[in-house]
Amino acid sequence: MSQSANYVLPPLGLNPSTTAAGTTPGSFARKPTIAPGPEGRYTFASPDTPGMPEPSMKTAWDFLPDGWATFVDAADQATCVSRDPESGLRPYSFKQSDGSTRHVTLDKRWKGFQPVTQLEYARLGIITGPMKRVAEREPHLTPAQVRDEVAAGRMIIPANINHLKYQLDPMAIGRASKTKINANMGASPVSSSTDEEVDKLKWAEKWGADTVMDLSTGGNLDECRAAIIRNSTVPIGTVPIYSMIIGRKLYDLDAETILATLKHQAQQGVDYFTIHAGVLREHLQFVKKRLIGIVSRGGSLLAKWMIDHDAENPMYTLWDDICDVMRGYDVSFSIGDGLRPGGLADATDRAQLAELCTLGELTERAWRKGVQVMIEGPGHVPFDQIEYNMKLQRTLCHGAPFYVLGPLVTDIFPGYDHITSCIGATSAGFHGASMLCYVTPKEHLGLPKKDDVKQGCIAYKIAAHAADVALGIPGSRDRDDELTKARAALNWEKHFELSFDPDTARAYHDEDLDVDTDFCAMCGHDWCSVRISKEIVEFASGKEDGYQWKKAKVTAALTPEQQQILASRGNLSPEEIHKLASKTKKAVGAKEGEKASCHSDYVDDDSAKRLQERSLPLVELNTTN
Amino acid sequence: MSQSANYVLPPLGLNPSTTAAGTTPGSFARKPTIAPGPEGRYTFASPDTPGMPEPSMKTAWDFLPDGWATFVDAADQATCVSRDPESGLRPYSFKQSDGSTRHVTLDKRWKGFQPVTQLEYARLGIITGPMKRVAEREPHLTPAQVRDEVAAGRMIIPANINHLKYQLDPMAIGRASKTKINANMGASPVSSSTDEEVDKLKWAEKWGADTVMDLSTGGNLDECRAAIIRNSTVPIGTVPIYSMIIGRKLYDLDAETILATLKHQAQQGVDYFTIHAGVLREHLQFVKKRLIGIVSRGGSLLAKWMIDHDAENPMYTLWDDICDVMRGYDVSFSIGDGLRPGGLADATDRAQLAELCTLGELTERAWRKGVQVMIEGPGHVPFDQIEYNMKLQRTLCHGAPFYVLGPLVTDIFPGYDHITSCIGATSAGFHGASMLCYVTPKEHLGLPKKDDVKQGCIAYKIAAHAADVALGIPGSRDRDDELTKARAALNWEKHFELSFDPDTARAYHDEDLDVDTDFCAMCGHDWCSVRISKEIVEFASGKEDGYQWKKAKVTAALTPEQQQILASRGNLSPEEIHKLASKTKKAVGAKEGEKASCHSDYVDDDSAKRLQERSLPLVELNTTN
Repeated sequence: MSQSANYVLPPLGLNPSTTAAGTTPGSFARKPTIAPGPEGRYTFASPDTPGMPEPSMKTAWDFLPDGWATFVDAADQATCVSRDPESGLRPYSFKQSDGSTRHVTLDKRWKGFQPVTQLEYARLGIITGPMKRVAEREPHLTPAQVRDEVAAGRMIIPANINHLKYQLDPMAIGRASKTKINANMGASPVSSSTDEEVDKLKWAEKWGADTVMDLSTGGNLDECRAAIIRNSTVPIGTVPIYSMIIGRKLYDLDAETILATLKHQAQQGVDYFTIHAGVLREHLQFVKKRLIGIVSRGGSLLAKWMIDHDAENPMYTLWDDICDVMRGYDVSFSIGDGLRPGGLADATDRAQLAELCTLGELTERAWRKGVQVMIEGPGHVPFDQIEYNMKLQRTLCHGAPFYVLGPLVTDIFPGYDHITSCIGATSAGFHGASMLCYVTPKEHLGLPKKDDVKQGCIAYKIAAHAADVALGIPGSRDRDDELTKARAALNWEKHFELSFDPDTARAYHDEDLDVDTDFCAMCGHDWCSVRISKEIVEFASGKEDGYQWKKAKVTAALTPEQQQILASRGNLSPEEIHKLASKTKKAVGAKEGEKASCHSDYVDDDSAKRLQERSLPLVELNTTN
Repeated sequence: MSQSANYVLPPLGLNPSTTAAGTTPGSFARKPTIAPGPEGRYTFASPDTPGMPEPSMKTAWDFLPDGWATFVDAADQATCVSRDPESGLRPYSFKQSDGSTRHVTLDKRWKGFQPVTQLEYARLGIITGPMKRVAEREPHLTPAQVRDEVAAGRMIIPANINHLKYQLDPMAIGRASKTKINANMGASPVSSSTDEEVDKLKWAEKWGADTVMDLSTGGNLDECRAAIIRNSTVPIGTVPIYSMIIGRKLYDLDAETILATLKHQAQQGVDYFTIHAGVLREHLQFVKKRLIGIVSRGGSLLAKWMIDHDAENPMYTLWDDICDVMRGYDVSFSIGDGLRPGGLADATDRAQLAELCTLGELTERAWRKGVQVMIEGPGHVPFDQIEYNMKLQRTLCHGAPFYVLGPLVTDIFPGYDHITSCIGATSAGFHGASMLCYVTPKEHLGLPKKDDVKQGCIAYKIAAHAADVALGIPGSRDRDDELTKARAALNWEKHFELSFDPDTARAYHDEDLDVDTDFCAMCGHDWCSVRISKEIVEFASGKEDGYQWKKAKVTAALTPEQQQILASRGNLSPEEIHKLASKTKKAVGAKEGEKASCHSDYVDDDSAKRLQERSLPLVELNTTN
């Protein structure tokens, strides 16, 4: 017998698995829990490595407008009315999703107040249509929980009241909801038409973008933005400074232009604005010794403006006015990080952190104005510093959703920065980021083409999904488990259906073996561990009802999309691909105009094995006794 | 002035930056440190999240052969000789790299003992040629440090004494050295020739594989293995059970076959063997309810053998004999994890952890036999469980190097598993793994083609490098910083040279803009934040000597490799690519047979801008005042 049979595994003192996400019986896994305390019961959080900044004890409830007051009554609401007899206004009292009762009073100045933003509705206890829709789309949350997260400032629903009139399908960004991804568009040549931009939008939506930023600096910006808003089901963000300085000298940028541009885009229906108000004159001294200065376009333009004018950042000095404009249409803030690092060497430096302090201040001020806020985060951060960055933001910005670009965890792989950055994005999502801005393979090298957009989206869906699974957000691992069961049953059809990109999975598989065999295409029949596991009668693997199937099956003909995937790989000749695309009709003699009959026909095991021997002639192995 | 100007950043109590890896002045970054205590001073380690298993207090020094004894004298070596007067053999005494003196005595049974393995040499204080070479290749380590890490069992130098006779360039795997990657080859059709396999080997070496495993199950296995060993500069690993059962019923596998096959491959010069001795009969009960049973080929074959024979795993029962064979040629163990999870649902389950306990026991026994050991680790693990997995292995296997496959952090992205797994691999490397076994885009779908091998290698070089930077291994970030400086100077030529894959970076760049402009190709001239940063005279960015350059430059003609990259992207027409490939000779009228003169000619700024306008017509912006 093994000497180690009686070894007792080291205990895990922390966080016994209490999340709803499935943990396998007998698992010793540590699971992050829904953290108690100031971050609230619905915030999925990773455990803290020692030395991380403590979470802020404050939320958006601590930054109400002047004349608003609130208190929470854990027991009942009897004491409410008598608490503020002088206001003359009825207090709003409502049961929060944790069972406590929240009371909110507004003084005389607020008589006749009508809420506009989701934050304002939430503060009054009102569950809006968008909140209900968010809870529908994320069934692990109730509408009341969504409202409470929005009220606390830990979640935003970027939904311009004018965009809601079109096709916007409301979604939420925040630590209690699933991790989201953003795709950037625009920066397009003048030759790019509005139709092309709408195509790009639809392409990004197809590959899972939860929001899209229109960063156009060319073409008919205004018409294009309007078309994108009309056609998008996802929230649209912009960086309005780009429009402010086209056709104008940067030096001439003034308050009037800034506010007029913001008002115009708000009226158009933009859901969130990136505004680089956190980069202050006093921060520029910290940039001087950086290896790569300022890499944010907005940040660099505003730095130049400040130096030229010897004046403070106008976005900062105009902050309260900007808030008023945005509040009127419920445009959310994405407060830009103009001093984000542009290389590992500049990460987590004084410039970046000084700006982050200002972002905290701006968050508090925006909340006082009733505006929803998220915070943008750094783009190049060594892997070990990511948790610190996320948790420092949680501290300084009181849990406002964090929206990060990547971050890239190494600088030396241009051409592969969708990969270098989705590594950082996974860690960022796990340690607290709520939305991940994609990076494409063309980053640092040129404008992304259509396939780059797809590659960027997929890398970021991987990051977001991996973070959600790791955080134990209920239900997030279900599809992985379904796919694992299909894999165990060697049910290729189901395997591909459950894949995020079924065409690619199918095409790669058929490159070697165009039949749904009872073995894994990597190892071949005789060496297939999964097939052997299935044969071991004691094991449950691959035997579950609905996953199990009887016989090998000829796969469907390759679609044009799948042919294209194989063509660009260059391993098969055009003739071979053509054969895979047309085989069923020719091979089986399907009648003209009819679906080839073998599409769903089973072939017997011997035929499957012959097919294997033809296309993948491995040495045979006798595993039977 | 900003309200937040005087905000004091939360302190980081832990691990002030003490590593040699550069931290930017003014940085608030937390850096992992060289951990004190049982893991030794040269082990780069990440900080532990609360709840992680405590590191083992033992090392390979605690598992010496019978008749060996050792003690450490922190002060001097005066007491040494008198300690063991009965042995009759002179004690080995040597100064360790931490300044202490180590004494080792062998009793009479060991008279005439000749060390063979690197571990045995290290235990006697002898610095071997391979140890010196490792220190040369990793200049942050001294030869004595290498010896001490090997002696402690925390590092291995997989170098079969027969492979050293050919071209093997010795390398080390261990937490004190840089993170390594392995590429798998083989599992090849019978049609694959030995020459093709050697080509694959060279291709994997070109893309940075630090070791290569030959997993062939087809072709002339023996001839092929010999050719690979003769031609490789990297260590070669095999899974000898594959050879043991070809041409034989699995049921007939016996002790004689096992030991004879191992001896033959050891004589051939294989540097490490994967042997699945940890999967025991008593573990199979834990597999029953798994979603996907056993996915290790070796594990599934041995499970079937155990069930059929109703007997213990023969690799386990023969362990001491196997050690004796391997010790004779200094073949290192890569103790296989036959019960590694095949999906997130099965990760960190009782089967996997029970086997890991046995791997710890096997480690101790191998060390007593003088054999070097590394441990294989899991393939599918949710992101949050990776640290626990790494640190539990550190505990149970006393810090023996951990060699992990991925792990994949989600199951639903077949076709992209080089990405899903390199995310896990980065975290594994940061939390303790020493070598990362690559996964290609074809994983789960078919046999990797040449480009899949490249994509897998690159994803894993990213993971290994990101982990090294995060761990603060001295010098590991230097190239990133050089590239950042080249980027700041908009020095495209240097930018590409410093890239891991210069051809891809160059081709992607030229797809939009075949000139080395003084702006970033993503944003164009007027919007280039890096150019604006350079213009801000106060900033140092992009102005460093040796990075700065004077004028825009026409890029060199595309090489065939670069043309191929653009062709497979499909964005440019064959004519456009041909133009990029031939432009210099045709456009500049270079004389027949001579290098086109413009290859290194500067073009003036205006020409560069005209080129931009032609190929990337962005709206112009006036940023000057």
